[in-house]
Amino acid sequence: MARMSHTPPPAHFQPVPLDKAYRLINHGPTVLVSSAHAGEVNVMSAAWACALDFSPPKVTVVIDKATRTRALVEGSGAFALCVPCAALAALTVGVGTDSAATVPDKLARHAVTTFTAPGHTLPLVDGCVAWLVCRLVPEPHNQAAYDLFIGEVQAAWADDRVFREGRWHFDGAPDTLRTLHYVAGGQFYVTGASLQVG
Amino acid sequence: MARMSHTPPPAHFQPVPLDKAYRLINHGPTVLVSSAHAGEVNVMSAAWACALDFSPPKVTVVIDKATRTRALVEGSGAFALCVPCAALAALTVGVGTDSAATVPDKLARHAVTTFTAPGHTLPLVDGCVAWLVCRLVPEPHNQAAYDLFIGEVQAAWADDRVFREGRWHFDGAPDTLRTLHYVAGGQFYVTGASLQVG
Repeated sequence: MARMSHTPPPAHFQPVPLDKAYRLINHGPTVLVSSAHAGEVNVMSAAWACALDFSPPKVTVVIDKATRTRALVEGSGAFALCVPCAALAALTVGVGTDSAATVPDKLARHAVTTFTAPGHTLPLVDGCVAWLVCRLVPEPHNQAAYDLFIGEVQAAWADDRVFREGRWHFDGAPDTLRTLHYVAGGQFYVTGASLQVG
Repeated sequence: MARMSHTPPPAHFQPVPLDKAYRLINHGPTVLVSSAHAGEVNVMSAAWACALDFSPPKVTVVIDKATRTRALVEGSGAFALCVPCAALAALTVGVGTDSAATVPDKLARHAVTTFTAPGHTLPLVDGCVAWLVCRLVPEPHNQAAYDLFIGEVQAAWADDRVFREGRWHFDGAPDTLRTLHYVAGGQFYVTGASLQVG
């Protein structure tokens, strides 16, 4: 079972204003859901996460009943969405395939390390390019009927090599920092070229 | 006010098996929501659409109270998600900016044309690369509190130049057929390179 650590944030970890937090996931990237409860830490991947509101910013994420993450989210009333980049593609598939329920060392096995942001206790995944700490907005019917969880974003950060001044800037950074869009069977599409209308 | 037409489907319009329908939006593209009620047709864009279940396939989409689409969806109990490609970027911004409530000719203004699939009556947007016809799963609390709508996918199709045998194949097709991921202020990222893990 993975335990809490309190490693400091990585370089390039910078706060994102709450009114811009939706932009971190507006383009539909696959995310990692990190959570902690009673000293236990877990991370799973989720392609089914989405913005739900601007202000206060809210998100939805689908968390299956079979996952260990679900117990931690329901137990703690909190989760974080961490946005992985191409450098973390294998890790993203790994933590989406193995369950901590049956593979207790899944985080170590997939080389997942976490840190905490100043003033926050949720584990955040190293090597990601954006992080949104969320308070669970309890909706028992949605959780039971659809595995659908709603979170209100409490704080957000991004790697300032690729997100600054309220916008993504993938074009001037290494391609390994581009975000990921999962399809199926281990296949992703990397976030591509910028296209400006108007 | 836009009225129903019954134009036949475009070339390359091919059915997608229901168990693969989630893959049409799993990578997080921005979509167009098309709807019709009492002879009125509308189309709006939505970056906040997401898969919710595999079987039967379900989706979520956020439809603001201010939109005309909302009245049509609530009136008809149905909507379609149409997945636009880069060639439709300006149209996608246009139908997301203008409301039919205040711009009655918005579809004509943004050169939106629709067709219907055999055996279905919902308008589908020409030039898109995937289409999912959905039955509204009424959830009055979600609709009122979060503008969140759930649909069960009844049928799906894709442009077989970019989706066939259950997978996207952007790499062998013109870049104008790549799907779009909206950020803000008229800026999209186009779906980029394929990345296979394992």
